[in-house]
Order: sequence, then C-alpha cells, then structure tokens
Amino acid sequence: MHAQDTDALHLALVEALGADCVSLDAAVAEAHAGDWSDAPRMRPRMTLLPRTPEDVARALRVLAKHRQAVVVQGGLTGLTGGATPQAGEVALSLARVNAIESFDRIGGTLTVQAGVPLEQLQTFVKAEGWFFPLDLGARGTCQIGGNAATNAGGNRVIRFGTMRELILGLEVALPDGTMLSMMNRVTKNTTGVDLKQLFIGSEGMLGVITRIVLKLEPKPSTANTALCAVASFDDAARLLKYLRARLASLSSFELMWQDFMSAAMDIAHLKAPFGDAYPAYALVETLGESDDDDRRALEQSLERMLEEGIVQDVIIAQTIDHAKQLWAYRETVGELLSKLKPHAAFDIGIPMDRMERLVEDARASLSERFPQQTHLFFGHLGDGNLHLLSGPYADATDLLQVEELIYAAVSKAEGCISAEHGIGVIKGPFLHYSRSEPEIELMKKLKALLDPTGILNAGRVMK
Amino acid sequence: MHAQDTDALHLALVEALGADCVSLDAAVAEAHAGDWSDAPRMRPRMTLLPRTPEDVARALRVLAKHRQAVVVQGGLTGLTGGATPQAGEVALSLARVNAIESFDRIGGTLTVQAGVPLEQLQTFVKAEGWFFPLDLGARGTCQIGGNAATNAGGNRVIRFGTMRELILGLEVALPDGTMLSMMNRVTKNTTGVDLKQLFIGSEGMLGVITRIVLKLEPKPSTANTALCAVASFDDAARLLKYLRARLASLSSFELMWQDFMSAAMDIAHLKAPFGDAYPAYALVETLGESDDDDRRALEQSLERMLEEGIVQDVIIAQTIDHAKQLWAYRETVGELLSKLKPHAAFDIGIPMDRMERLVEDARASLSERFPQQTHLFFGHLGDGNLHLLSGPYADATDLLQVEELIYAAVSKAEGCISAEHGIGVIKGPFLHYSRSEPEIELMKKLKALLDPTGILNAGRVMK
Repeated sequence: MHAQDTDALHLALVEALGADCVSLDAAVAEAHAGDWSDAPRMRPRMTLLPRTPEDVARALRVLAKHRQAVVVQGGLTGLTGGATPQAGEVALSLARVNAIESFDRIGGTLTVQAGVPLEQLQTFVKAEGWFFPLDLGARGTCQIGGNAATNAGGNRVIRFGTMRELILGLEVALPDGTMLSMMNRVTKNTTGVDLKQLFIGSEGMLGVITRIVLKLEPKPSTANTALCAVASFDDAARLLKYLRARLASLSSFELMWQDFMSAAMDIAHLKAPFGDAYPAYALVETLGESDDDDRRALEQSLERMLEEGIVQDVIIAQTIDHAKQLWAYRETVGELLSKLKPHAAFDIGIPMDRMERLVEDARASLSERFPQQTHLFFGHLGDGNLHLLSGPYADATDLLQVEELIYAAVSKAEGCISAEHGIGVIKGPFLHYSRSEPEIELMKKLKALLDPTGILNAGRVMK
Repeated sequence: MHAQDTDALHLALVEALGADCVSLDAAVAEAHAGDWSDAPRMRPRMTLLPRTPEDVARALRVLAKHRQAVVVQGGLTGLTGGATPQAGEVALSLARVNAIESFDRIGGTLTVQAGVPLEQLQTFVKAEGWFFPLDLGARGTCQIGGNAATNAGGNRVIRFGTMRELILGLEVALPDGTMLSMMNRVTKNTTGVDLKQLFIGSEGMLGVITRIVLKLEPKPSTANTALCAVASFDDAARLLKYLRARLASLSSFELMWQDFMSAAMDIAHLKAPFGDAYPAYALVETLGESDDDDRRALEQSLERMLEEGIVQDVIIAQTIDHAKQLWAYRETVGELLSKLKPHAAFDIGIPMDRMERLVEDARASLSERFPQQTHLFFGHLGDGNLHLLSGPYADATDLLQVEELIYAAVSKAEGCISAEHGIGVIKGPFLHYSRSEPEIELMKKLKALLDPTGILNAGRVMK
C-alpha cells in the first residue's frame, strides 16, 4: 500500500475517531503487536484506540470503505495468535472501551463494555455481594470482550458453564459498521434465532463485541478443597459422578496424572502430597455458604469413596493456606510451559468414555517416538477438557508430527482440537480434525454474509 | 397447485422414502394438523413419516426441488401454532425418527433421534442412574427435537438451564437436503462458530433437527419442597437471592401472586395453605442426594428467612404426597386456561429489577380497562419468566388490545415477549417488541442463506 493510501486512511480515521485515538507511533504499535511469543511479532500499520462502542462501529465503517484489514485486540493474553497483527493489518484495541455501565442488584446482571479487565469486574461485583464465576490465570489482563469472543472456560465450568452460559446479551459492531444490539437481560428469551451465539467463541471473525450483559451468581462465602489419590482413570470418573450427584456445590474437578504430578513437584520443589505415589490425583473444590455444612458434606462424601475403595487417600484442606498448597501442584503449568519450550501444548476435549484409552494410547505413542521429551497429562476432567504438554522439540518437523499424531487421535475419539483456547492462527491448519466439510462450508458462508469485504480478523479460525 | 403436480411430487416422495412413509389419507392428515386449538385446523396436503434422519434429508431435497412448502412436526404440543399446517403445506413428522442411539454411561451423554418423546428419554436414563433435568407438562407427548427447536424451559431452569444448555451436539437436515453434522460430545468445544446454536430455539426456520447429543446429570435421589408466604415481590427477590447462595441444590423457585393463588384454590377446590392470605407465595424445590442434610439445610435457611422477616410463613413438605399438595396450586394452570377462554396467555421474560413495577402497572391497567375479566400472575421467578393469564375475551379486538398493552410494557421494561413458548405464528406480529430492526434483518438474511427457496416452516417466527 502506498504512503498516499495510508495518508487517506489515516485522515479518515482521525476524522471519525479524533486524532488522539489513532496512532502511527511505533512504540504504541509494538505494544499492540500481540503476545503470541513464539510467532514473529508484526507491527500493525496503525493502532486504533476508540473510546466508545459507537466509535468502534465508526472505525469499522471507515476501514471497510478503504478495504483495510483489521485485527481486534483485547488484553492480548490469548494462546493461539488470534490477536497478533498479520502483515499490513491495522490493530483495533478495545482497551479504552471499558466502562461498567449498569448493575441490576436485585436480579444479578451486569452491563459492561468489552474492554473491562476480568479481575476488575470480579472485584466490582464481589463488593456488592455478587459473584462472577469465570476465572482464569490471565484475569488481571484479559478483557471480558476477549473472554466472550473466545468462549473462555477455566476451572469452574463444571458448575457454572463456560462464558457462553454467563452471557445474557451482547452488542456487536458488524464489519460494515452496523451496530447490532442484542442486549437481552433475561435468562429465558425464545424469540427467534439467538443471534448473539454467532459471536460468542467465534474469535472476532464475524463482528466486534462492544457491550455485554453478564449473568452473576450470589457470592459464595466459603470454599473447601481436597486432593484425592485414585488408582485409575476409571475410579476418577466414578468419583466425579458421585461428587456431582452428592455435592451440588462442586465447582472444580481437576485431574493430574502421575507424570504431571511428579514434574510439578520437581519444578516447584513441592513435597509429595501422600506417602505413596498414585496413578492420578483429583483436585476437588466446592463453593458454598455454610462452612460447617459444606465441609461436613465433602468429608462424608470422600470418606464413603475411601470406604468403597474408589479413592486411595485423601487430604482435605483445613485452612485457606492449606488449600493454596493443594492448588500449587496444578498451578505449576506456567513454569512447566517455559521449561518444555519449544513445546506442543494441547487443549483438547474428549468424551469421557474415550478419555482413558486416548491418554494411554497417546502416552505410549509419544514415549515410543519421542523418548527424550517430557509428556504431561492433566486437565479439567469435569468438562472432558484434557491438557497435554509435550516438549522440548528443537526440530519444527517433530513438533508438527506430534500435533498431527494427537489431533488425528482426537478426531478418532470424537473429541475437539480446542476446548477453551480457540483456533486463532496456529490451530487453523488442524480445524478439519474437528469440524466437518459442511460445517466449514457454512462458517465460510456466514463470514461472507457478515464480512463481505473480508477485512475483519482475516485468516483467524479459517484460511 | 394442479393434481398433476401433486402426482409428480407424490411419486418423487414415494420414490425417496417408500410408499408407507407418504400419506394422502385424510385421517392421517387430520392427526397431523397440529394442536393449536384456537386456530383453524388446516389439513396438510400430504403427510410424510420418514423412518431415519437420512430420509428426512432426502424428503427435503425432493420438496426443495418441487418448491413445496413444508411444516415440521414433533409431538404437536406447542402453544404458538408453529406446527399447525398452513394452506398448501406438506407435514413432515419426526414421530418415527425415534431411536435412542447411544449412551456414554461414564460421562453421562445420550445420543438420540429427534422423535423420542421427552418422558421416554427421562425414564430410560433414570434406570441407569442418570437424570435428564428438562421437564414440562407435555412430557409424555412432546418430542426432544421439538424441545430443542423451541429451546424448552420448564420448572428447573434456575439450576440446570434451558434446553440450549443441555445440548452438546446436533445433526440438522438443511432445507436443500444437505446433512449438517455437529455431533459434538464434549462440554467445551471452541473451534469456530458454534453452528448448532443457530438451530436451537429458532423453531425449525433454518433446518430440521434430526439427532441430538444430550448432557445428563447424575440422578438425584431426594427432592424437598416448601411453600413460603411473602409480603412483597421485594421479599420474594431477597428470598431467591439468599436461597441461590445458600442452597446449591435449589432447582425450582416458582412465584404465585395472591390473585393466582385464590383462583387456583377456587378451581381445584384446594384448601388455603396458611391461615392468612399473603401478597405472594414462593414454591421452592431442592434436588439432592442426602435426604437428611438437604432437608436440614432447607429448614435452616427458611427459619433464618422467617427470623429476618423476609418470609411470613412456611410449610415444608414432610412426605412426597405432601409435596404434591404444595405443587397442586401451581399445577392448576391447565384448568385455569380452559376456564378463561378465549384468553390472552403471556409467557414473558422481565429483568428482575423491572418485574415488580411491570406486574403492578399491568394489573392496574388491566383491572381498569377490563374489570370484568380475570387477570392472574405467576411464573418461574428464578428465571425472570412471568406468566399472565387474562380472560375471557369474547371480543377479538379486546384480546388484541390486551396483547398490545402487555407487549408494549414488556418492551419498555427491556423484557422479551416469549421466554419459553416461542413465537410460532401467533406471536409473529409482536416480534418487533422484542427484537431490533437490525436483528430481524439479520434473521432474514440467515433464512435466505439456509433456505433460499423458502420452503421450510415459512411464516413461523417472521413473516
């Protein structure tokens, strides 16, 4: 593109948004180059920092007119390169579109703009006796709009659902600059196609989320945590089913296989939780209102599981610090990711009746073909969401081989190649392992319908 | 259409499906004329009773080729005329596409064809220790495909969500006969646009649901029920928030205003639950595993609410029969509907912070303008779903006036005109009270994209 074109585009954007919202500055651009650290960081041509939802729509109208490709950016904490600028793209940041707009304190719904950081929103509602259950490691930086666009998950999906289940209403700026308001505030609304669903989890390929109505839960006042040693995946599944039935307050059920547990202890210098080692460990959390009742119910349930031989050993946290110690094993993931670089990091969904077989087969294949590498299995078992870290792979061909191997197994097990991280650009080549031809065809038709000039987040999810 | 055209179409359908699946018989047609009893029952031109999902797709291919309008039929229990044949339509019944295909007993997912009656499916999984939480009065007749197409709700949405939250995967026959398989079996799947959402709740305007993967819950073994008298809507909302926080096992929270309660007692000759009358009554249910613990938690919670003056009086059911007696007030709806015919029956969603005002204003307006009629308020308060029965209206102009009055108030309160019954044909004229111009525009574009010849369920939801 010629300098002249850039000038014309720049001028039009300044006119639409104001000079202070359009930046050609390299430092600002660098800051908006995305966080996908293994990929080349391409500076955006320009960085837009609009202040209102309406300005986002205005910016898109100008960009569409100039057929200028644009990448939407939230907190830049994604793991699949979706927000990383590609050659020639303008970056559109939601960082300043960040007002908390209104709060129904009776029913527990909150209306916010897309750029509000998750943690700020969590803290805001907590002070009012409400609770927003979505939680993930990037909470301080990630934005609620990005959480919606990627249908974020985290540790409490088993009880409260993914982001999709926590959204009542959306406002979306369409690629042609139309503002599509779907700001529903009620739990049940059956009045035709639920259009907001098109934009949740589709990673900004169809529109830019600008406002959201969130469904809150009453704030729980107490959490209980336990770590359970189990002799097999089968027993872990039995334990999960029993606890789901017995404890409506069950909010997390995280499984760590022995390989993961042992690597976690190593890297963070943690003591072994039990005298013996076991094939797997389940980290269990309940959230409730009554400390005594909830703890007693958890204790009684786990005692029964011990008696029945489904659980081999148990630790129930007695204090908040103790609970943190139990979570510490699970929270070494960041350190393990760094250590195993360059790694293959999987975020796959597997039907429960296929999980054990898939883990065993994958472990056997990986150990055989890559005996020098480390392969760690863990995940949100309650949601069938398996994470697998494998590395380091100095050779990119090996890395690709691992990806092909695992994704083919996932496809055979009727699973999905991304449970909560999304597709972005790095998993695009593997999409066909999860979605059928007619599905991809229909996604392309929807893209053409809503973004006929193809300016928005091009190449994300699908080529 | 000429007899010759009918012959050609009939021949093509017989060739595609087999003679025993295509009926010109008036008796069969009459049985498929739908149940929307206040509307003229139009006999379908032909009735198709395919046996497999693939045959449904085959039938649609033939119908599209002949540009023959078709109405999809499930259990014919809908309340908005969506399945009632319009002039010249062929009826396509899913009644024989009714196999239970597979069951993941470890993870709790069930794969079924669309024609399975809800109750059959509930019973099937219960025998295996699992639970399908969707429940509504028509359970014996309604089909799971219809439940999905209308995003059915019912009494337990507060805990388990609507049908949308209970669906993991779908298979849909598109109007051109393409089979779109989205048979996901995992809770978390973030791999592009979640296409199945287009078909859930859109009442068959975009495709025919043929197969469904359902998410089950572990079977609860005990239910506890209580009836609480409250002095105001405000107190009912406080009670709801407290119980949601305190009792994760809370599965129903139904509110009945005094006018409804008194009409219910009259029509079913029921005794007054309390010595005094109160402005409103909340029917509360918990579902759990431990009889003693659950009952104790419910008792303690309600005692505290009594002490704090938020609840005026309480009855906790001591036996299953006693629980049925408490539900009996709520379950007079069918009889009341008959008595108030011709009635206006509303199924609206209202944000909690607007509910009290809306009910008061609506009651005042209705009483003033229609003092001879009865106006009854009740609903699934936990979901902001309000039902209002008003009648009888001998004069159709009055009926329309009531509808316009209530829907305008709903729109002003940022509510929706249908929470769980859908739009069908009878609420189509009021759609604009709930959906914005750009939304209706986009729905029309989606309809044109997926059903370019416009043969499928034409005139439902939108004209």
